[in-house]
Amino acid sequence: MAERFDRIWHNARLATMRADRPDLGEIERGVIATRDGRILYAGAASDFPADAESIQWIDCEGRWITPGLVDCHTHLVYGGNRAHEFELRLKGASYEEIACAGGGIVSTVAATRKASEAELVASALPRLDALIGEGATTIEIKSGYGLDTETEMRQLSAARSISRQRKVAIRTSFLGAHALPAEADGDKDRYIDLVCKEMLPAVAKAGLADAVDAFMEGIAFSAEQTARVFEAARALGLPVKLHADQLSNLGGAALAAKFSALSADHLEHTDAAGAAAMAKAGTVAVLLPGAYYFIRETQEPPVETFRKHGVHLALATDCNPGSSPLTSLLLAMNMGATLFRMTVAECLTGVTREGARALGVLDETGTLEPGKWCDLAIWDIERPAELVYRIGFNPLHRRVWRGQ
Amino acid sequence: MAERFDRIWHNARLATMRADRPDLGEIERGVIATRDGRILYAGAASDFPADAESIQWIDCEGRWITPGLVDCHTHLVYGGNRAHEFELRLKGASYEEIACAGGGIVSTVAATRKASEAELVASALPRLDALIGEGATTIEIKSGYGLDTETEMRQLSAARSISRQRKVAIRTSFLGAHALPAEADGDKDRYIDLVCKEMLPAVAKAGLADAVDAFMEGIAFSAEQTARVFEAARALGLPVKLHADQLSNLGGAALAAKFSALSADHLEHTDAAGAAAMAKAGTVAVLLPGAYYFIRETQEPPVETFRKHGVHLALATDCNPGSSPLTSLLLAMNMGATLFRMTVAECLTGVTREGARALGVLDETGTLEPGKWCDLAIWDIERPAELVYRIGFNPLHRRVWRGQ
Repeated sequence: MAERFDRIWHNARLATMRADRPDLGEIERGVIATRDGRILYAGAASDFPADAESIQWIDCEGRWITPGLVDCHTHLVYGGNRAHEFELRLKGASYEEIACAGGGIVSTVAATRKASEAELVASALPRLDALIGEGATTIEIKSGYGLDTETEMRQLSAARSISRQRKVAIRTSFLGAHALPAEADGDKDRYIDLVCKEMLPAVAKAGLADAVDAFMEGIAFSAEQTARVFEAARALGLPVKLHADQLSNLGGAALAAKFSALSADHLEHTDAAGAAAMAKAGTVAVLLPGAYYFIRETQEPPVETFRKHGVHLALATDCNPGSSPLTSLLLAMNMGATLFRMTVAECLTGVTREGARALGVLDETGTLEPGKWCDLAIWDIERPAELVYRIGFNPLHRRVWRGQ
Repeated sequence: MAERFDRIWHNARLATMRADRPDLGEIERGVIATRDGRILYAGAASDFPADAESIQWIDCEGRWITPGLVDCHTHLVYGGNRAHEFELRLKGASYEEIACAGGGIVSTVAATRKASEAELVASALPRLDALIGEGATTIEIKSGYGLDTETEMRQLSAARSISRQRKVAIRTSFLGAHALPAEADGDKDRYIDLVCKEMLPAVAKAGLADAVDAFMEGIAFSAEQTARVFEAARALGLPVKLHADQLSNLGGAALAAKFSALSADHLEHTDAAGAAAMAKAGTVAVLLPGAYYFIRETQEPPVETFRKHGVHLALATDCNPGSSPLTSLLLAMNMGATLFRMTVAECLTGVTREGARALGVLDETGTLEPGKWCDLAIWDIERPAELVYRIGFNPLHRRVWRGQ
């Protein structure tokens, strides 16, 4: 008897992004078939059963299909707006003047603490919709603008509830160790105690976090403090990830690898030892060119070193109000190519397969393979390179999330 | 008797961009009234006649209205696609390999020569629609990928015909002196003869160009050759503009000023004398951060020098397949601020009032003032700075062209 499907996309060109195929795993004459939200077939039309039956057949007219995009590093949920601070800075305002005008991360923390969960969701949705409008189907969202138990939980809860308002998979990361709140009075160790002993257990108990993140940097937390957060996460069975080596090399990449982190992110100052450790641990390097661009960084992440060591490379928006108000993965890809000299294939796998790997969901999404969710982006393009090459252009034809 | 209008937008915040008002000429509680496509009133609600009558009243619910955006420098109409060249270059291909694979401007010229007018229009429309989708109402389009009389005219004719397919004002510039075609065999002077004696008169006779442009650079044409093109334009009564001082300082800004050019564009290497000459001549400095970004230029245009001399600053996309595949004025603004440290007000006036000035159409559009075309962009934002600050985000609520 013929196999039955819910939907079949035919007359398509596929960039499967399969790791077992070279480049993008392209298939020139491809078919994708779905049932119950899963991909049952993604391959050559010539191998597809001729007698297949389907409720719906969709002629893609030669369009390209990629996996739905994955944004594996965002701070999408926050209160307030930092456009005014940006304006003041360009006028030459000093940091003191900006602080007096209510600028800096402090202002985002204050606004986030003041916002209700509904307000947090409402202000995040336009940003989310921008990502979705370019074909994103899986998006990571961090906390880290609460810096107290109640607000961190509200931020994560807002992130979770977003997935009930849009057809998108949300992965949450608890980032209590993002910055030191004013009330901690400069005592980082005591704050990390709070993160490990109060916030993290509460977050874990409520099931609000899929992973635990930290910001290891001179202006944030030390290796020792970060390790304490990671130990606490491990005790609760939560995977970790790290903002590492962005402004200086404190050995963040190596520490992340030591804890088998899903990913280490930013990495402008990572050295060869850090890259080697990441490769060995399978820790994905998440590069964030939006932040590099916006803060006018000049130290490029060591892409060639990562390649040499075989580190997996992902790309993400780092969407946040202070250092990367970016809501476009297409643009993140162009920046990855233009600013970091990543190849087209690295950029495209970086926002699909490797983004999924960086979130620990590669068995569920990120490539076009049977058994995974049927998350697709269908594009009006002649070749996949156009998605990386063009700037400020969105050729998305249709987005499919879980087969629909 | 009460004054009658076609449409009234009320409950709006206006960024009028009027030159006689500071900053953006903001009006917190504003009204715009139109009849026959023109603005009859753009000002405070409190001064608007209480008994005004209108066919339609539109409640803007507090949204911001700016003039419709102006992209005053594009090469939007061309044949072919250079995404593959971009891909090869990132893989480390040499210029020879790229040339063999059909890359470089030569490939765009070949593809443009091969394309029919209808094909040129069809391939340009998605790029145009991206600009329009962000509120652009006036767009300049250059020739310069034909480099022979027939193709240059076809390119300009395609640009003109676009304005019949979309509600947008198109201004055309003849850029025969863009590059030397292969058949010229390296003889630039003879090619400039062809430009001045054959192409330009034919273009002018057919009414296909609103201005004449040239590319003055070591890799393009000399000051003397450029001057010959400008003399020919002057004899035909056409205003000029210039690609000047992009890669080196050959005195392009000063030459443009000498010919009272509408604008000099790029200007990374312009010196104080050039800036002073431009200020005196009223020649607008059109900055093109998309090209600066895409070719990884490090020499910033002398924004502070332009300010000091009172040169008008415009911003544009430079949309072209080789050095700026950018179709977003919002992004051009963010790049102007991030890469060139332009202020928010400079960016916003740069894509409205100053863009219009750079095209010689400031009496018709570019600000919200009575008598001008009613070209509006209505935005879902809390303050105009958001249009510059955000990256890869389009808060356009509605676009109005000539009152509709």
